[in-house]
Amino acid sequence: MAPINGSTVSPLPSPVSKNGPSLTSPTRKRKPSTIATNVTMMEHSVGREQRAGVLGQHEGFRGCTIWFTGLSGAGKTTVSFALEKALTQMGIPCYGLDGDNVRHGLCKNLGFSKEDRAENIRRVAEVAKLFADAGMVSLASFISPFRADRDSAREIHKALGLPFFEVYVNAPLEVCEERDPRDLYKKARKGQIQGMTGIDSAYEPPLSPDLVLHHKETALEAVNTVLEFLVRQGIVPEEALSSLAPAPIRELTVTPEEKPALAAELASLEHEVQLDLVELQWLQVLAEGWASPLYGFMRERQYLQSLHFGQMLDLKRKCLFPGEEDPNAEDGEDTFPMDGPLNQSVPIVLTIDADEKARLTKDGRVVSAIALSYEGKRIAMLRKGEIFEHRRKERSARQFGSIDERHPGVAQILNAGEFCLGGDIEVLERITYNDGIDKFRFTPIELRKILAEKNADAVFVFQLRNPIHNGHALLMRETRAKLLEKYRNPILLLHPLGGWTKDDDVPLEVRIRQHEAVIEEGLLGADWTVLSIFPSPMLYGGPTEVQWHARARLAAGVHAYIVGRDPAGIADPASESGDALYEVTHGAKVLSMAPGLSHLEIVPFRVAAYDKKAHQMAMFDPTRKADFEFISGTKMRGLARSGQTPPDGFMAPKAWNILAAYYKSIAKQ
Amino acid sequence: MAPINGSTVSPLPSPVSKNGPSLTSPTRKRKPSTIATNVTMMEHSVGREQRAGVLGQHEGFRGCTIWFTGLSGAGKTTVSFALEKALTQMGIPCYGLDGDNVRHGLCKNLGFSKEDRAENIRRVAEVAKLFADAGMVSLASFISPFRADRDSAREIHKALGLPFFEVYVNAPLEVCEERDPRDLYKKARKGQIQGMTGIDSAYEPPLSPDLVLHHKETALEAVNTVLEFLVRQGIVPEEALSSLAPAPIRELTVTPEEKPALAAELASLEHEVQLDLVELQWLQVLAEGWASPLYGFMRERQYLQSLHFGQMLDLKRKCLFPGEEDPNAEDGEDTFPMDGPLNQSVPIVLTIDADEKARLTKDGRVVSAIALSYEGKRIAMLRKGEIFEHRRKERSARQFGSIDERHPGVAQILNAGEFCLGGDIEVLERITYNDGIDKFRFTPIELRKILAEKNADAVFVFQLRNPIHNGHALLMRETRAKLLEKYRNPILLLHPLGGWTKDDDVPLEVRIRQHEAVIEEGLLGADWTVLSIFPSPMLYGGPTEVQWHARARLAAGVHAYIVGRDPAGIADPASESGDALYEVTHGAKVLSMAPGLSHLEIVPFRVAAYDKKAHQMAMFDPTRKADFEFISGTKMRGLARSGQTPPDGFMAPKAWNILAAYYKSIAKQ
Repeated sequence: MAPINGSTVSPLPSPVSKNGPSLTSPTRKRKPSTIATNVTMMEHSVGREQRAGVLGQHEGFRGCTIWFTGLSGAGKTTVSFALEKALTQMGIPCYGLDGDNVRHGLCKNLGFSKEDRAENIRRVAEVAKLFADAGMVSLASFISPFRADRDSAREIHKALGLPFFEVYVNAPLEVCEERDPRDLYKKARKGQIQGMTGIDSAYEPPLSPDLVLHHKETALEAVNTVLEFLVRQGIVPEEALSSLAPAPIRELTVTPEEKPALAAELASLEHEVQLDLVELQWLQVLAEGWASPLYGFMRERQYLQSLHFGQMLDLKRKCLFPGEEDPNAEDGEDTFPMDGPLNQSVPIVLTIDADEKARLTKDGRVVSAIALSYEGKRIAMLRKGEIFEHRRKERSARQFGSIDERHPGVAQILNAGEFCLGGDIEVLERITYNDGIDKFRFTPIELRKILAEKNADAVFVFQLRNPIHNGHALLMRETRAKLLEKYRNPILLLHPLGGWTKDDDVPLEVRIRQHEAVIEEGLLGADWTVLSIFPSPMLYGGPTEVQWHARARLAAGVHAYIVGRDPAGIADPASESGDALYEVTHGAKVLSMAPGLSHLEIVPFRVAAYDKKAHQMAMFDPTRKADFEFISGTKMRGLARSGQTPPDGFMAPKAWNILAAYYKSIAKQ
Repeated sequence: MAPINGSTVSPLPSPVSKNGPSLTSPTRKRKPSTIATNVTMMEHSVGREQRAGVLGQHEGFRGCTIWFTGLSGAGKTTVSFALEKALTQMGIPCYGLDGDNVRHGLCKNLGFSKEDRAENIRRVAEVAKLFADAGMVSLASFISPFRADRDSAREIHKALGLPFFEVYVNAPLEVCEERDPRDLYKKARKGQIQGMTGIDSAYEPPLSPDLVLHHKETALEAVNTVLEFLVRQGIVPEEALSSLAPAPIRELTVTPEEKPALAAELASLEHEVQLDLVELQWLQVLAEGWASPLYGFMRERQYLQSLHFGQMLDLKRKCLFPGEEDPNAEDGEDTFPMDGPLNQSVPIVLTIDADEKARLTKDGRVVSAIALSYEGKRIAMLRKGEIFEHRRKERSARQFGSIDERHPGVAQILNAGEFCLGGDIEVLERITYNDGIDKFRFTPIELRKILAEKNADAVFVFQLRNPIHNGHALLMRETRAKLLEKYRNPILLLHPLGGWTKDDDVPLEVRIRQHEAVIEEGLLGADWTVLSIFPSPMLYGGPTEVQWHARARLAAGVHAYIVGRDPAGIADPASESGDALYEVTHGAKVLSMAPGLSHLEIVPFRVAAYDKKAHQMAMFDPTRKADFEFISGTKMRGLARSGQTPPDGFMAPKAWNILAAYYKSIAKQ
């Protein structure tokens, strides 16, 4: 046990006066009592704000009481319990009091006379007040038929400065009597119960309730109504709502309504930056929300966070010195909700050269609006631009662990401009390629819809940039089988990378047809597979890039990510024997520890090889090594080019034929 | 406002049956009532564990009631309030109920008759139970003189499976009567009050209280007694205690009692690794706890965390693939308390070459114990060793953003062994250098004591590896003046880096004498300055290293860190014009955003220059640029070597003479 002694708790300001005897301080503040004799009010030495600091997942004191009133059977407790669940899920501490529970304890010595009812409500109000004072949202659901009693409850809270919201759950007597879940109305009608509210005892509806719920609302709708109300009242922070749903996705494409104005503004602009294909692909990544909630190309602040910590820690615009004031504070903070740091191992920047920098700067400030264009067409707007140094060697070293120009990702950086242009982006319209496979290009929000329509209760993603052999298919089937132990309907997002790849990779269009053939031949179930294209360009950044591959898919609502051996790896260009640039286990290791990837299950990729005895691809079994043959990419290419067929069971024949045709066609060229 | 609609809250399992009317579900579980009629018990749909999930800073449900009983004036409420403060500080949600507060609300309709007293206690017990059920620690402080009432309170909790602890605050009547903070005893003696417990009403002391507090304990001691008890009861997690004190420091040096056994074991060992001076300095860093709670030289897990995320995310030993089992699980987890991720931008590793790896490995496993020696003396033990690849170029690239061998830090890595040996370290004894300045070498724990003895209520650190000119001193005085606005006694930790530096830096021993002279001449107040040596070697790692410089000082209890322009910077060896390798503002920017450095205030270093008009060093004023002269290190060295004196007011004369003598001595060589 850690030592507990005087010094352990020394930061406590001792409530003991140094000279006085010991336990009782004569100097504590007291308010004079106005009611009982010999009793003085003691102020708690811990204040509300301090208590709030250790309560819940949101800053600030949010203690209050929500008082549900209405007839028996109106649904008060149902809504209250559902609200308790929603608030808890949102990280807002709350506690539900209801007539039935309290009647067994605090108020068990009370009956149902008017006086007892009043005392019942009074006691409950006092307890609700204590919970509110403790910083919790107290939910009280009581018939509380008499106005005077409810008004007293409000007064009790008002006296301590605690918000009190009277919510009238308005259901007509007929409806409640028809529901009559506990046969109370029936008994009352038969005279077996006396003093039943609505039958032989009055219900006085609130004259000016803070909120009214109607009996036609479902519990869900009613909870939403209350939550909306609580947001308006400042009790529930807006960003907390997001914890009830998957994180909202920020798309940077404008709405059809906004498009004409943006198009006109773009056409009128003096300043323009031309994008190349890879930059266009990054623009698409940003536009569709794969890097949500990033607002555009990174400013220096996000760039340094990504490069040094592999994370997006916040969306503040300016990278200020400690103590420095933001000279552009009028731009305001970015207010998109961001629930803690997010993994962002890869900087997403737009680079420019010194000439462009000079063109885009006036009087030492970046011009206010810049058009981004691709192949002569203005496709996006960049506002509130910031230009900062693109220290290419340093970036390359930190991002790739290498500055070898023979590495294609490194080469792109070293050959890029020496400045970065960060800023807020608006994209005019969906980015498409007219290459016959646009129909496989879905945004994260579209994928969420598709997956919801398939009734997915778990989504696992397979990132790939290579043809699928039967070993891959086996792995995906096995992953699904494993998920079926916990989930009802796990769906595979088969998500080939669709952006730039190096020349010797198989082209996207061929891969898509190959993947379709694999599904057609039944190696992946068409009912549990969604084939879609991931728009990001490839980096060959190993452990750094695999994090990006996983993180981007979170936007599509993915729960599990299958990680392979040497993910996003590449041969070390400095190695004559073709050694991998990255230690082949680092990708999975780093991914499994990466901060800012919470809620994503990492599924290890087990190695599959051709089982020569079974004549099929199988999970490699090291106890009978000799039975297995590893068919490398090089070998596969060789077979395809020379018109040979691979061993039976290596790849679905239709899928193989697509690949073989491709390799033959390039062999001819 | 974020849209709120049905789908927003869709993860909520709807409590509404699809066919039934709407708000009231007829299927909710009910327990039959045993007491009142027409009342059924409703189970909360949110369970205790779920509620606990959004309460406080520690996992798990810890709801309970602590019931303080004792005479009026015994100190119940004083202890209860102090405990409430301590628990809040520890992140444990709690709420204090006391007789005085409750008497004004919940129980205002009760008097002091035996019956009313019983009902008072019953109601309070019911409320305390609700708070405990909500997951909070309820603190109830009531005279509660009658055993039967207290026993009922316990029963009420027991019935719901909630812990109830009766704490007897035992103060004799004489003591309470002497204290008599509210003159109640006096009034009772005069007959002005009836039914005063201890006077004309009985107090029945608990027969078997869960805990007894004695009146001779101070409130602080009493709180500690209760906290110890709550740790034993599993209510307060042990690690929470640490939040009452500065984070505990893990030293790796064995105690004097353990030393002989370790020395004997070291002498008997077959396997040994020789350390060089820089490795010795890192061992000292580890031994003294500057990288606390790191247990020794990093294993691959910590190494990858440091390299990729600049943090120590956990202290788990093995870097496992997702889903993989640890084959050495018998080694157990490292259990030193770690309160969230800590900044650790610099890997601390021990490198070995392939021959050493072969020597230290038997049957594919690292030998269980390895002696570490320096200059032929065995000084430390490494256990549970793990050997992993030291990918030197990649590390250098990621750590320094450079792989230029002309950079001294890069060169050290590129010339090091190709493997790392991680493992748990025990150091035989304090590492000293017998260089005449060991007396300035304090461990973090020693510094905490020294700072506490100086009654520091804030500590600001100045990291340096250069002589102090009057501009530096001005900055430190200004920083102190600023802190004096908030603190009573801010102390400066003047903390020159004492490990390896490159050849053209001024040697440590000369710097220390120079610093002493600056203090002697009164440019820094001797009463508010602690001069000590930071044992770390220098890396020249810019924004990466400045984080280490700040993070290490947290161990010494530092609150504020002064960060300069281009901290830990160096000229780019590839630049002919001597450009800085790192963008000069990145250090301060990255440091100000760095995760895992909470509670450390970053103070920006303003530039000081020689004010030719005022004949003294002053904060540079850009509005009268021409008045200022920047005196570079090169210029200073030139003056010193040639026997010239710098401008008046540039440096304290005594301090200048020490420096001049040094430069003259090396010019001779």
